[in-house]
Amino acid sequence: MPRLYALVLSGGAGTRLWPLSRRATPKQFLDLVGGSTLLRDTVERVSELVPTERIFAVAPPEHRALIHEQLPELRADHFVVEPYPRGNAAAIGLAMAALYAFDPEAVVAVLPSDHVVEKRARFREVLIAATAGAERGHLVTLGITPTRADTGFGYIEAGERLDVAAPVEVLAVRRFIEKPKREAAERMVAAGGHFWNAGMFVWRVDRILAAYREHLPATARAIDALAEATGGPRYEAVLAEVWEETDRTTIDYGILEKARDVAVVPADIGWHDVGSWARLAEIVAQGRNWASGGHVAVDAEDNYVWAPGKLVALVGVEGLVVVDTPDALLVVPKERAEDVKAVVDRLRREERDELL
Amino acid sequence: MPRLYALVLSGGAGTRLWPLSRRATPKQFLDLVGGSTLLRDTVERVSELVPTERIFAVAPPEHRALIHEQLPELRADHFVVEPYPRGNAAAIGLAMAALYAFDPEAVVAVLPSDHVVEKRARFREVLIAATAGAERGHLVTLGITPTRADTGFGYIEAGERLDVAAPVEVLAVRRFIEKPKREAAERMVAAGGHFWNAGMFVWRVDRILAAYREHLPATARAIDALAEATGGPRYEAVLAEVWEETDRTTIDYGILEKARDVAVVPADIGWHDVGSWARLAEIVAQGRNWASGGHVAVDAEDNYVWAPGKLVALVGVEGLVVVDTPDALLVVPKERAEDVKAVVDRLRREERDELL
Repeated sequence: MPRLYALVLSGGAGTRLWPLSRRATPKQFLDLVGGSTLLRDTVERVSELVPTERIFAVAPPEHRALIHEQLPELRADHFVVEPYPRGNAAAIGLAMAALYAFDPEAVVAVLPSDHVVEKRARFREVLIAATAGAERGHLVTLGITPTRADTGFGYIEAGERLDVAAPVEVLAVRRFIEKPKREAAERMVAAGGHFWNAGMFVWRVDRILAAYREHLPATARAIDALAEATGGPRYEAVLAEVWEETDRTTIDYGILEKARDVAVVPADIGWHDVGSWARLAEIVAQGRNWASGGHVAVDAEDNYVWAPGKLVALVGVEGLVVVDTPDALLVVPKERAEDVKAVVDRLRREERDELL
Repeated sequence: MPRLYALVLSGGAGTRLWPLSRRATPKQFLDLVGGSTLLRDTVERVSELVPTERIFAVAPPEHRALIHEQLPELRADHFVVEPYPRGNAAAIGLAMAALYAFDPEAVVAVLPSDHVVEKRARFREVLIAATAGAERGHLVTLGITPTRADTGFGYIEAGERLDVAAPVEVLAVRRFIEKPKREAAERMVAAGGHFWNAGMFVWRVDRILAAYREHLPATARAIDALAEATGGPRYEAVLAEVWEETDRTTIDYGILEKARDVAVVPADIGWHDVGSWARLAEIVAQGRNWASGGHVAVDAEDNYVWAPGKLVALVGVEGLVVVDTPDALLVVPKERAEDVKAVVDRLRREERDELL
């Protein structure tokens, strides 16, 4: 793929996979589904299309060591440090500055690193189609084919098919819909033509910079200053100066919902957001008992246990998630898995930083 | 108490407290209720009445190191090794040989080491009464005042009050009742005058030896030979020779149910048999959430978690037992706690000796 770059986003620090996921090691750095970490998977998924020297990553400074460890092939000047969180419009803008300085004609795939994609070959086809759309000037989103009426994601309503020759159709975006209520979600999934917004995008860097200028001019000015300073001695000083001038918003709300020429490529790629232990259990256990180190079950069904190196004995229990780490042990039914946040909130209030 | 000796029984190797209790470290060697092991507690409970030099213990050879570690004050010649299990009539008989050789006029309290006794002062009073009964020639059992119609214990039906001056009444035993059905248990508990047989006895060593001679003559011959050889160079050889001649039975069935002059002292001593994780949970947690290393609970009730050194997060769960050890993790509802045996049986069949 000529000029296709990948920008790996590694800024997240969710709380719903506690106690395994911690501030110091968020989920993208964990080997959750066997064999490799989510971050490593993200890079390997694009490796056939994007050579190592065209991979960029953006992450907060506290993840520098983990990024270096897990992506040793990443060029040092392709690791973009986000000083502190200001929303992903600013983080992506910061990385666009580095990309523009490196190659003003770059086409870039923006890829969050905290997801699972099961169908790699299909993902590559989708990415090729999205790249074709981006080369034609579109801001392309990957639209995940919904598998249920989920109310936890934003949706993308597709319109007419665009004139792009590609292995997968490229559609115009009619509108973005924020996390819907259940009824609306059910209606959209039943109607078809609606996709989950998974935060994966492909665009020409000059096109997204134009969109920043139009919709987030303060961030655009910061990007211009940073692109100018990239590779020079004043970069750090400029970053320190302009970072707090960026708009605090998301790329969806700040740009994509307002921009023209936004397209979507339907992506039936076996995508999962690993947003909670229940979701992870679905992916790896699929309704059976599953334990990372092996198990014995007596009248037990549909339990998910993370306890590496241990035999797990399940007797008379159903639908439980148990997560065993060296300093914390979580027990929660799958249907309450989202409430792990409440535990993390409580630990935060009690300032038990060693457990966060 | 003149001439009162204590014989600590440490032969048990139950499976229902797996994965904490293992073949190599059965429950009597564990610190289950905080501060001390059950074995250590057993010795300390009698320490005001029985000086160190009058304590004996009987245990299999594989427990020698643990006994030495936990009861360092035990005289080496007071540790009686049971070569392999032949029922507690043989094990107690073996220890009686050592006791008789040491002091033919000994009065001895036989004390299993896998129980909890909450009321120490009351236990001492009961023991004083039982000793008074034993000095009068009775074979005295301690009869636990039942707190529920439990079908897991044998019962003792008491008869008339005996003429023994003591702080607690000493009653004749009318009969022993093996583990009853529920209805029978309910009838006995409602009627009063029935007690649980907890396997705690006090008797004069010469009286129990006479009972062995009458009811288990083969074991009695072995005891005589061993008493004769005790302290001499031939003891090991005699033991190897006579051990397999002993009767394979229990002291209750083999002797007490048949003997005359059996007495019972009602013992309202806060006794618990720690026979399962559910029982242990009752003792330490009493219906509240309890975790050995602290916990955070969100909509969670009545859970018991053994996970030393870990914060335990309980979300939306009720009535669970979770036991976390370095190589095995158990999850079971309290009402299924007895079924831990099924797990152990399965591991045995699969020859997973490292987990047993």
